Parts: sequence; structure tokens; C-alpha cells
Amino acid sequence: MADASVAPPPQLKDELDIVIPTIRNLDFLEMWRPFFQPYHLIIVQDGDPTKTIKVPPGFDYELYNRNDINKLLGPRASCISFKDSACRCFGYMVSKKKYIFTIDDDCFVANDPSGRAINALEQHIKNLLCPSTPLFFNTLYDPFREGADFVRGYPFSFREGVPTAVSHGLWLNIPDYDAPTQLVKPLERNTRYVDAVLTIPKGTLFPMCGMNLAFDRDLIGPAMYFGLMGDGQPIGRYDDMWAGWCCKVICDHLGLGIKTGLPYIFHSKASNPFVNLRKEYKGIFWQEDIIPFFQNVVLPKECTTVQKCYIELSKQVKEKLSKIDPYFDKLADAMVTWIEAWDELNPAGASKANGTK
Amino acid sequence: MADASVAPPPQLKDELDIVIPTIRNLDFLEMWRPFFQPYHLIIVQDGDPTKTIKVPPGFDYELYNRNDINKLLGPRASCISFKDSACRCFGYMVSKKKYIFTIDDDCFVANDPSGRAINALEQHIKNLLCPSTPLFFNTLYDPFREGADFVRGYPFSFREGVPTAVSHGLWLNIPDYDAPTQLVKPLERNTRYVDAVLTIPKGTLFPMCGMNLAFDRDLIGPAMYFGLMGDGQPIGRYDDMWAGWCCKVICDHLGLGIKTGLPYIFHSKASNPFVNLRKEYKGIFWQEDIIPFFQNVVLPKECTTVQKCYIELSKQVKEKLSKIDPYFDKLADAMVTWIEAWDELNPAGASKANGTK
Repeated sequence: MADASVAPPPQLKDELDIVIPTIRNLDFLEMWRPFFQPYHLIIVQDGDPTKTIKVPPGFDYELYNRNDINKLLGPRASCISFKDSACRCFGYMVSKKKYIFTIDDDCFVANDPSGRAINALEQHIKNLLCPSTPLFFNTLYDPFREGADFVRGYPFSFREGVPTAVSHGLWLNIPDYDAPTQLVKPLERNTRYVDAVLTIPKGTLFPMCGMNLAFDRDLIGPAMYFGLMGDGQPIGRYDDMWAGWCCKVICDHLGLGIKTGLPYIFHSKASNPFVNLRKEYKGIFWQEDIIPFFQNVVLPKECTTVQKCYIELSKQVKEKLSKIDPYFDKLADAMVTWIEAWDELNPAGASKANGTK
Repeated sequence: MADASVAPPPQLKDELDIVIPTIRNLDFLEMWRPFFQPYHLIIVQDGDPTKTIKVPPGFDYELYNRNDINKLLGPRASCISFKDSACRCFGYMVSKKKYIFTIDDDCFVANDPSGRAINALEQHIKNLLCPSTPLFFNTLYDPFREGADFVRGYPFSFREGVPTAVSHGLWLNIPDYDAPTQLVKPLERNTRYVDAVLTIPKGTLFPMCGMNLAFDRDLIGPAMYFGLMGDGQPIGRYDDMWAGWCCKVICDHLGLGIKTGLPYIFHSKASNPFVNLRKEYKGIFWQEDIIPFFQNVVLPKECTTVQKCYIELSKQVKEKLSKIDPYFDKLADAMVTWIEAWDELNPAGASKANGTK
């Protein structure tokens, strides 16, 4: 039955793109071949456009380098980070599919405790296709999973759940630690396989990691902006965090859910903690103001679409975070540019018109 | 090393009582003997006081039946449920220890996936002795557990955590389902061992089950009231739920944490779903108003102790829930009586004066 269990639900083959920020390691695609080959790949090259990424035969892909991004977006290309994996969000924008799965090139196939290769994509699709339960905590975790349900005391009116917009997967081996924790615990490895998926409750923020992440473009795509990082920017490694905080407050406002837990990937390589510290250190300070900001964001009820929510959020960022650093003024502008570019490449209903449900 | 790993931290032997609502099955104590024998047991007999509960030799215990409760509390005994396991909260009140572990007599020792017997008490103590993190979600679950930590993007100022007041354990085999779910899924068994402990985020309610539960009496004891259930009451099986909702809003207000997850016990016997339906059906309706009530409770900042919070909560219950049913008027009064009785049996600082920290 192994074959049947690793095959993705066939109806999603035409509804999901895999976005990869860059590929420095060809083993990466070979390892994922049985799982990724049925899907279309969007590779967004994060550095020097003169370098060539070799994609092994048999994969259906499109590749964008900086020149392509500049050509497609013109002056609006300024909102896409350069020399940083944050550029991956350009792939979300050019995709025409309903679902996106994004993964880093140092993330390999993990094994579950029985030794079986984990089909991460299949689990993400399961997570996205069944509802979330952000209004009340279920102590047996995802109530929609086989063998589980809502426990005694769970209000019946909440059991329908809400649509799931984001599926956040985890990492065995190298955990996703910040530079200070990497420096203090260089040998720590995550060996604990926690067999659970759960909804992040409404009103609670979480650190969203972009290493192993899937989402519903139709539901939340325009909020999945990875900000301004890398070349010319004072900060790095907060791209996915920024997207996560924005997505969470917008999902809470619009009645959408975010799940975390399974699937695991095997994270093979710790990034350099010294380089990371340089990228992160301003974020470590700034975060102390950013988190209270997001914890207190209120979106007016007129914000009925992701785009409207995101533009409103950009205004509040400008108003309340610019005092931390002029960077946030620039970021707030880039958030608007991102939405303009998104709407240009994605005329209303484009994804729906494209044969997806 | 098996012995060392099942022995409870010795410093807690004088600081923890085990409260058991009744014991219908002597195998229960025999099975738990290696884990429970070092501790003092408080057995609160939930039914006919003329019946005798036989406790096998070697256990240090005290046993209370209805006559004892009436004698000790006088007219205030009215706040303690009769012919219902909700009477167990009397045991919380008469204990003089810092920690309580409560368990039902149909809960046996479970095995972890490696086949090793789980020392539930040891895990509860671990949960209670290390901080909770209700202000931000950590995707690798309890950051204080061995092999885990706070992940990238977790604000440093939140990493100290808050004191843990409650440790909510789970159940393998028979899950804690309500009567409708029991009726629909009579054969469902929980076989999934989820190797995680996590903090229920601030602002999120959860269904607290009293089958396998530990808490810090000094921190939250007076809110651990199991309400009016059983004989003469229109409702049953909401005793632990009620306590959980009250405890959660008070913990959120006072900056305390509640953890859920490990340890598992083996829940051997499903209660009769038809009997359960009779007990529950009003609760299933009422809950639809009770949950929004608790989701919107605001405790004024003058409420600086659990008792003050609880009295304030009783006022709000009377004001806002009495319109559902006169039962809530009676319950609100019983909440006040409970606090009066608690304070009478627990003069200020009694537990602290008793050699606990």
C-alpha cells in the first residue's frame, strides 16, 4: 500500500504549485522527485542572475531570476527582496494555482517513527482541505483527523470550523532557532516526532517559518508577502515571521484558520549563526515592539478582502512602527507596492477562472 | 535506569495529595501502587455513605463520605455535589498540600509507544514545575522540555514564561467524548500517542477534563470548584468543564498558565452514553451561551487574588447567565459558599505555613 499512501490526491495536481527560493543542491530535487514530479515548480533564484540553476530532467518548472522579476514588475520590482530567500514570494504572485507549497533547498524527506518516508505535500493538502478550529481549543488536537473528534465540552456551534488558509509544517534534525539560541545550543537536534496537527487559536500569534509551508492562495495569498530583506536592507531572517504575523491577524479578522504541526521535513543544514546574528540583531530588538503592535491590531469591518486588510495594515505599520526605524516606513510602502503588483498579475477571479474550485 | 525514571522527585512527596472521587474497583489502586504509594490519598466517596470503600494495605489515605462533608462544612456543605464525582473538589479544599493530582477510578496506567509504563504523576509534576508560555505560541511545543527551545521569532521578553497553575493530562483508549459523539462513534478508541505538552494560549478556552488533572492549589485552588452536579441538579458531566472555564479566565487575568498534553492515562471504560445524554443535554444547549459569556468575561484589576476573581465571576454569572435558567442563580450562590468554605478551612497562608514553598 506504500504507493497508494504516498500518491497525492490527484485532483490537486492541477491546483498546486511548489515554490522554491533557490536550488544550490541538486540532490534536493532528486530526493523529492517521487513527491514533486507530478507538480509544477516555480523556482525564484535569489542571487546573481548570471548563474544558472540546473534542474534535472523530468520536472515541469519555470525559473525566474532578478532580470525576469525586474522585467515583469518594472519599478514595482522594488518590493521583491534581492539576495535573500524572501524573494520566494514573487513565486506566490506569478502562480495561477489555488495552493502553494514552499520549501527550502536544505530540507529533505524525513522519516516517520516507523521509518516510512513522509510525503509532506500530502499532509499539507490534508491540512488545507479540512477546517480549522480557532475559536476553542480541542485537547485531542485536530478533530478532523482520523481517529479523533471534538471532545466533551466542545461547543457544538463551533464544530463546523472555518476554512484553513495556512498549513505550517515542522522540521526534524536542525530546529529553526534564532542566532543566539544556535550559538548557545550548537548541538541541539530535534528528534521528537509529535504526531499532531493543531489550529493556532484566534488572537494568538506564532512564529511562522517559511521552510516547510503551504497555503491557499485564493484565501490568503496577498498577505503572504515576505517583506524587504537581504541586499540593501538592515534586517534578514524576519521575512517569514513578518508574513506570519500579517497573515495571522488577517486570518483572525476574516475568520480563516492556520494549522501547525505535521508534516515534518528533515532540515539538513544549520545556517551560520554568526551570519544569522548580523541579519537578526535589529529584529531581536524591533520584535519587542512589533509583537505588541500585532497583538493589538484591529482591522475595521470594512476590510472584507485580504487586499483591503493588507493595505489597512500597511497604514498602521507606517503610523505605529515607523518611529522604531525608517525601515518600517519603507516596508509599509513596499506592502502597498506588493498589493499593486499582486492585483496587476492577478486580475479579480483569475485563479477561480483557471479551473480551480 | 527504569527505577530512577519512574521515581517522583522526592521533594514533592510532602507537597502533593492525590484526590480520588470514589473507588469502585480495587484493581485501580493496585495498578497505581508503585506510583501512588509514596503520596497521601484523599478519597471523597460520591454516593451512599453507608457503603464502605476498602483501601488495600500500604496506602496512606483519608476518606470522606457525605456525613463527613456535612459535619465539616455544616450548611455550607450545600455547595458540594452529592452522588456525582464533582464531589471530588471537597478533597481539594481539605488538602493542605501545594499540589493536587486528581484521577478517576477507571483510569489505569498507560504505556508509552516503547511499551514503558507511564508515570503520570511525574509528568504532571514536571509540567507544573516549569513555566507556561500563554502569550505567544511556540511551534515546537513546550520550550522548557529537554531537546526543545523557543524557535526563531519568539520574542525574548516572553521567554521567562509565567507560573504554571494547571496540568491537563490526556487519555488513551476511551476518549473523553460527549454523549452524542459516543452514540455516533461507539467504537472509536484513541490510539495516538502525541508526545507533546503545550500551553493553552491566553484568551483561548478549552474543555478541561477532570479524569487526569493536576494543579497548584496555592496558585489556583479556590477556582477549582466543580459546581453543582448530580443529585437534585438539572445537569451532570459539566463539573470539570465549569471549573476549567473559570480557571482559564482567572489564570489569564492573573498571569498564570495552563498546560495540556502529556501525561496519558489508559481510560478503561466508556460511561453509558444514554445516561450521559440525560445528564448532558441541558448543558449542550446552555453551553452555547456559557462559552460566549466566558469568552467575554473581563475581571477588573482590583481582582488580585483567586478568591476575589472567583467572587467577581460569581456576580457576573448571576447577572448574565441566570436568564438561561434559575440553575445559574443557584450555582452563583454556591460559588460564593464554596469560597467561604475554602477560606474557613484554609486560613490565609495555611499551605505556605505548612512547609511547602
